[in-house]
Amino acid sequence: MRRGLLLILSSPSGAGKSTLARRLMSWDRTIRFSVSATTRQPRPGEEDGREYYFRSREVFETMVKTGEMLEHAEVFGNLYGSPKGPVEAAMKEGRDTLFDIDWQGGQQIRNSSLGRDVVSIFVLPPSIAELESRLRGRAQDSDEVIAGRMAKSRDEISHWAEYDYVIVNRDIDTAFNELTTILQAERLKRDRQPDLSEFVRTLNTEFASR
Amino acid sequence: MRRGLLLILSSPSGAGKSTLARRLMSWDRTIRFSVSATTRQPRPGEEDGREYYFRSREVFETMVKTGEMLEHAEVFGNLYGSPKGPVEAAMKEGRDTLFDIDWQGGQQIRNSSLGRDVVSIFVLPPSIAELESRLRGRAQDSDEVIAGRMAKSRDEISHWAEYDYVIVNRDIDTAFNELTTILQAERLKRDRQPDLSEFVRTLNTEFASR
Repeated sequence: MRRGLLLILSSPSGAGKSTLARRLMSWDRTIRFSVSATTRQPRPGEEDGREYYFRSREVFETMVKTGEMLEHAEVFGNLYGSPKGPVEAAMKEGRDTLFDIDWQGGQQIRNSSLGRDVVSIFVLPPSIAELESRLRGRAQDSDEVIAGRMAKSRDEISHWAEYDYVIVNRDIDTAFNELTTILQAERLKRDRQPDLSEFVRTLNTEFASR
Repeated sequence: MRRGLLLILSSPSGAGKSTLARRLMSWDRTIRFSVSATTRQPRPGEEDGREYYFRSREVFETMVKTGEMLEHAEVFGNLYGSPKGPVEAAMKEGRDTLFDIDWQGGQQIRNSSLGRDVVSIFVLPPSIAELESRLRGRAQDSDEVIAGRMAKSRDEISHWAEYDYVIVNRDIDTAFNELTTILQAERLKRDRQPDLSEFVRTLNTEFASR
């Protein structure tokens, strides 16, 4: 059975990453979404294990120390990270794991022991005007909050060149099509098809018995 | 403008490689097919520059010496090779070049100065019985000729693990779909989209002028 791969999707907030991630999960239901752990308080309606694993700072830090976090970072005073156990379990079942994380998480996973299983994709907005309008459109936030998000977006975009693939999200259907194309091609890579060795052995047996 | 890539398609004879190559050329008419040079005599109906560039051994060997051949090999007493000039011209125009060549040619191009622009795909037959039936089906050849081709096929298949991607041609439509998927994904790789640097610069200018 093939080993699952780690699909990392990063982008500035507002570039369409979450929509793409959600559509990918319905497109192929074998993909596992990596739910992050966080020390921040749950918001109304958020459920432990669905939006996030909500953990105390003490528990989170112990997980980091014992190597149970594939990556983690502090953002606005809260810790966020990707637990390693579920990822390894999915990989062994031949299932791919999708990570909706920022450049810091992407860097850490690429540099981890699972780095060779990573396929990383960066999603760029068509323009900054479009990015800002999407950020403004989805919530009634103050100019200050928007300015903070825009600064974070600029920082995120500065890391685009660290990714294997880049999708410019001018149109969500085209972008989604590009995303599935990348995933399908990656699954066709020789070193992601371990069953092939066995298959070629059967071909050779067939040659020998002609 | 992006730099064209070198798409190498190899497979044992009878695995469907030529059908795939032909379909790919109609699917995207910007792709350039690499016509090989050879020292063998033209067969009736073959045209210089279409099936092959027919060259004398003297001319061919001079081309090898002056570095005008990207790869070459001797097969059954005749020299075959891929002229470098047209490939470099296509790359500069942002056009991909398709090579329908064997493992020896594939190895040489991967190890050439253009190696980093190579995407290599190996096409496997679903079974040896199927391979033999396709070889027998297309011509009235003697058992001896068939046996020679089968031996060559076995040798070709032994190099499958040197390729980036592997397609098992169980069904030609599925195989073709996989081929175009690979090509489209490769074109989305960051380092094959040189225009992106300029695009991100415009995004940064937009950020700065907010």
